[in-house]
Amino acid sequence: MTEHSLWRFSRALHRAINERRYEDLEALIDEDVDWAIYGPIDMFPFLGARRGREAVIEVIRQIAEHVRVHRFDRETIMLGEESASSMLRYSLTALDSLKPISLRIAHFAQFRAGRLFNLRVLVDTFDLVEQALGRPIHLPKMASFA
Amino acid sequence: MTEHSLWRFSRALHRAINERRYEDLEALIDEDVDWAIYGPIDMFPFLGARRGREAVIEVIRQIAEHVRVHRFDRETIMLGEESASSMLRYSLTALDSLKPISLRIAHFAQFRAGRLFNLRVLVDTFDLVEQALGRPIHLPKMASFA
Repeated sequence: MTEHSLWRFSRALHRAINERRYEDLEALIDEDVDWAIYGPIDMFPFLGARRGREAVIEVIRQIAEHVRVHRFDRETIMLGEESASSMLRYSLTALDSLKPISLRIAHFAQFRAGRLFNLRVLVDTFDLVEQALGRPIHLPKMASFA
Repeated sequence: MTEHSLWRFSRALHRAINERRYEDLEALIDEDVDWAIYGPIDMFPFLGARRGREAVIEVIRQIAEHVRVHRFDRETIMLGEESASSMLRYSLTALDSLKPISLRIAHFAQFRAGRLFNLRVLVDTFDLVEQALGRPIHLPKMASFA
């Protein structure tokens, strides 16, 4: 049984982010990859949609400039033949401030011939924004939507 | 081939939220269900963790008091024998204000004997908070984390 594409991609992604080594990663991304990490792109320009290998490598470079992956725990995982989804808890370090950032994400990945072809990532964005701001955002208690 | 537990659960959940009919849903939830929708519980008391069927039915009642499901699109889905994950885009109506709320969520569900046993839901919470507030939250552009 060959190794699932997710494991190869995951290792290469973390190597890219933590060691800024991109050569393995490039071989594991489809030329026409469709990539989206949903979130407030005004605050975090490396979130949002990207299309094509070059744009995706570039955005991973931007992510690598901002954070290091300290550890991650895969809380849930589903593997298909050429697909995978998981929920993960990341412990990141913000490179400028050396502040810890703790983040839960969910991803859905599709592979084609072993290469990442489609990625959708959802992040608990409010939690991320508060940690990045370094302070809580005051929220009204909503008995209802305003 | 019998119908996947996800479809039964999904129909019963939407019937519970939109029509406040809970009888189908109760039969589809394990007595010891472990349930979590991650998000700011100070603002939305119906988010957070719940344990056991009674607590889960109660939180679904609370959700039903606040929103109606106008429509939903399942953007990605993975089905296992007793598990399922998907990313969905929901169009909700806030019942008090009749405001539309558009929301992307990811869920991971595990079933046991056809009943929901574990549910983890991640929401694009910053987007949700802004829509509930009815105004954008001003964010600094972060070249880096503060």
